Amino acid sequence: MKSFIAKVYITLRSGILDVQGKAIEHALHSLDFEMINNVRIGKYITLNIEAQNDGQAKVFVENACKELLSNPIIEDFNIEIIEND
Amino acid sequence: MKSFIAKVYITLRSGILDVQGKAIEHALHSLDFEMINNVRIGKYITLNIEAQNDGQAKVFVENACKELLSNPIIEDFNIEIIEND
Repeated sequence: MKSFIAKVYITLRSGILDVQGKAIEHALHSLDFEMINNVRIGKYITLNIEAQNDGQAKVFVENACKELLSNPIIEDFNIEIIEND
Repeated sequence: MKSFIAKVYITLRSGILDVQGKAIEHALHSLDFEMINNVRIGKYITLNIEAQNDGQAKVFVENACKELLSNPIIEDFNIEIIEND
Protein backbone atom coordinates (compact mmCIF):
# COMPACT_ATOMS: atom_id res chain seq x y z
CA MET A 1 0.00 0.00 0.00
CA LYS A 2 1.18 3.48 -0.88
CA SER A 3 -0.01 6.82 0.35
CA PHE A 4 -1.31 9.44 -2.07
CA ILE A 5 -2.70 12.95 -1.84
CA ALA A 6 -5.76 13.70 -3.96
CA LYS A 7 -6.82 17.19 -4.97
CA VAL A 8 -10.45 17.37 -6.05
CA TYR A 9 -11.91 20.38 -7.89
CA ILE A 10 -15.70 20.51 -7.91
CA THR A 11 -17.29 23.12 -10.18
CA LEU A 12 -20.83 24.01 -11.16
CA ARG A 13 -21.53 22.91 -14.74
CA SER A 14 -21.50 25.73 -17.26
CA GLY A 15 -25.09 26.78 -17.85
CA ILE A 16 -25.99 26.38 -14.18
CA LEU A 17 -26.55 29.81 -12.59
CA ASP A 18 -23.98 30.44 -9.83
CA VAL A 19 -25.96 32.53 -7.34
CA GLN A 20 -23.14 32.72 -4.78
CA GLY A 21 -20.70 33.74 -7.53
CA LYS A 22 -23.04 36.49 -8.72
CA ALA A 23 -23.38 37.83 -5.16
CA ILE A 24 -19.60 37.93 -4.74
CA GLU A 25 -19.21 39.60 -8.14
CA HIS A 26 -21.63 42.38 -7.11
CA ALA A 27 -19.78 42.82 -3.80
CA LEU A 28 -16.44 43.04 -5.66
CA HIS A 29 -17.86 45.69 -8.02
CA SER A 30 -19.04 47.76 -5.07
CA LEU A 31 -15.48 47.54 -3.66
CA ASP A 32 -14.09 49.00 -6.95
CA PHE A 33 -13.04 45.68 -8.47
CA GLU A 34 -15.03 46.35 -11.67
CA MET A 35 -12.31 44.60 -13.71
CA ILE A 36 -13.43 41.25 -12.28
CA ASN A 37 -16.31 39.33 -13.90
CA ASN A 38 -17.80 35.87 -14.28
CA VAL A 39 -17.02 34.77 -10.71
CA ARG A 40 -17.81 31.10 -10.12
CA ILE A 41 -17.46 29.36 -6.78
CA GLY A 42 -16.47 25.72 -6.54
CA LYS A 43 -15.01 23.41 -3.93
CA TYR A 44 -11.38 22.43 -3.51
CA ILE A 45 -11.08 19.23 -1.48
CA THR A 46 -7.77 17.67 -0.44
CA LEU A 47 -7.50 14.24 1.14
CA ASN A 48 -5.04 11.42 1.87
CA ILE A 49 -5.69 7.99 0.39
CA GLU A 50 -4.05 4.57 0.68
CA ALA A 51 -3.99 2.48 -2.50
CA GLN A 52 -1.83 0.01 -4.46
CA ASN A 53 -1.03 2.60 -7.14
CA ASP A 54 -2.16 5.96 -8.49
CA GLY A 55 -4.67 4.38 -10.88
CA GLN A 56 -6.45 2.63 -8.02
CA ALA A 57 -6.32 5.80 -5.91
CA LYS A 58 -8.01 7.72 -8.74
CA VAL A 59 -10.79 5.12 -9.06
CA PHE A 60 -11.47 5.28 -5.30
CA VAL A 61 -11.67 9.08 -5.36
CA GLU A 62 -13.88 9.07 -8.49
CA ASN A 63 -16.28 6.76 -6.70
CA ALA A 64 -16.23 8.98 -3.60
CA CYS A 65 -17.04 11.98 -5.83
CA LYS A 66 -19.94 10.19 -7.49
CA GLU A 67 -21.36 8.82 -4.24
CA LEU A 68 -20.85 11.73 -1.86
CA LEU A 69 -18.53 14.62 -2.69
CA SER A 70 -20.27 16.04 -5.77
CA ASN A 71 -23.79 16.40 -7.10
CA PRO A 72 -23.40 14.94 -10.60
CA ILE A 73 -26.60 16.59 -11.84
CA ILE A 74 -25.25 20.12 -11.49
CA GLU A 75 -21.51 19.69 -10.79
CA ASP A 76 -18.40 18.42 -12.58
CA PHE A 77 -15.31 17.16 -10.81
CA ASN A 78 -11.62 16.91 -11.64
CA ILE A 79 -9.11 14.82 -9.70
CA GLU A 80 -5.32 15.10 -9.36
CA ILE A 81 -3.41 12.29 -7.64
CA ILE A 82 0.05 12.98 -6.20
CA GLU A 83 2.34 10.45 -4.54
CA ASN A 84 2.85 11.29 -0.85
CA ASP A 85 6.54 10.82 -0.02
CA MET B 1 -6.08 45.78 -21.68
CA LYS B 2 -5.85 42.01 -21.79
CA SER B 3 -8.22 39.40 -20.48
CA PHE B 4 -7.05 36.80 -17.97
CA ILE B 5 -8.61 33.91 -16.10
CA ALA B 6 -7.70 33.61 -12.42
CA LYS B 7 -7.99 30.41 -10.43
CA VAL B 8 -8.07 31.00 -6.68
CA TYR B 9 -7.59 28.20 -4.15
CA ILE B 10 -8.69 29.08 -0.61
CA THR B 11 -7.73 26.61 2.11
CA LEU B 12 -8.07 26.52 5.87
CA ARG B 13 -4.69 27.07 7.51
CA SER B 14 -3.10 23.92 8.87
CA GLY B 15 -3.85 23.75 12.57
CA ILE B 16 -7.38 25.07 12.10
CA LEU B 17 -9.91 22.27 12.72
CA ASP B 18 -11.90 21.53 9.56
CA VAL B 19 -15.32 20.57 10.94
CA GLN B 20 -16.92 20.13 7.52
CA GLY B 21 -13.97 17.99 6.38
CA LYS B 22 -14.28 15.77 9.48
CA ALA B 23 -18.01 15.30 8.84
CA ILE B 24 -17.35 14.27 5.23
CA GLU B 25 -14.55 11.93 6.35
CA HIS B 26 -16.93 10.15 8.75
CA ALA B 27 -19.57 9.88 6.01
CA LEU B 28 -16.97 8.42 3.61
CA HIS B 29 -15.91 5.85 6.23
CA SER B 30 -19.52 4.77 6.71
CA LEU B 31 -19.74 4.29 2.91
CA ASP B 32 -16.71 1.91 3.04
CA PHE B 33 -14.12 4.49 1.94
CA GLU B 34 -11.91 3.76 4.97
CA MET B 35 -8.80 4.29 2.81
CA ILE B 36 -9.54 8.05 2.73
CA ASN B 37 -8.35 10.32 5.56
CA ASN B 38 -7.49 13.90 6.41
CA VAL B 39 -10.28 15.43 4.27
CA ARG B 40 -10.05 19.21 4.08
CA ILE B 41 -12.58 21.40 2.31
CA GLY B 42 -11.54 24.63 0.63
CA LYS B 43 -12.93 26.91 -2.04
CA TYR B 44 -12.02 26.95 -5.72
CA ILE B 45 -12.96 30.28 -7.29
CA THR B 46 -12.57 31.07 -11.00
CA LEU B 47 -13.03 34.54 -12.44
CA ASN B 48 -12.26 36.68 -15.47
CA ILE B 49 -10.16 39.81 -15.03
CA GLU B 50 -9.07 42.67 -17.29
CA ALA B 51 -5.56 44.02 -16.68
CA GLN B 52 -2.48 45.41 -18.47
CA ASN B 53 -0.49 42.23 -17.83
CA ASP B 54 -0.46 39.09 -15.69
CA GLY B 55 1.45 40.80 -12.87
CA GLN B 56 -1.21 43.48 -12.52
CA ALA B 57 -3.97 40.85 -12.76
CA LYS B 58 -2.35 38.95 -9.88
CA VAL B 59 -2.14 42.08 -7.71
CA PHE B 60 -5.85 42.83 -8.32
CA VAL B 61 -6.86 39.28 -7.39
CA GLU B 62 -4.59 39.28 -4.30
CA ASN B 63 -6.30 42.45 -3.12
CA ALA B 64 -9.74 40.93 -3.79
CA CYS B 65 -8.71 37.88 -1.72
CA LYS B 66 -7.52 40.03 1.16
CA GLU B 67 -10.56 42.32 1.12
CA LEU B 68 -13.39 39.91 0.39
CA LEU B 69 -12.73 36.39 -0.91
CA SER B 70 -10.77 34.93 2.01
CA ASN B 71 -10.65 35.26 5.77
CA PRO B 72 -6.90 35.88 6.31
CA ILE B 73 -7.11 34.94 10.00
CA ILE B 74 -7.99 31.30 9.31
CA GLU B 75 -7.45 30.85 5.56
CA ASP B 76 -4.59 30.87 3.05
CA PHE B 77 -5.01 31.58 -0.64
CA ASN B 78 -3.14 30.67 -3.82
CA ILE B 79 -3.67 32.36 -7.18
CA GLU B 80 -2.98 31.13 -10.74
CA ILE B 81 -3.27 33.62 -13.62
CA ILE B 82 -3.81 32.31 -17.16
CA GLU B 83 -4.02 34.43 -20.31
CA ASN B 84 -7.50 34.20 -21.85
CA ASP B 85 -7.11 33.81 -25.63
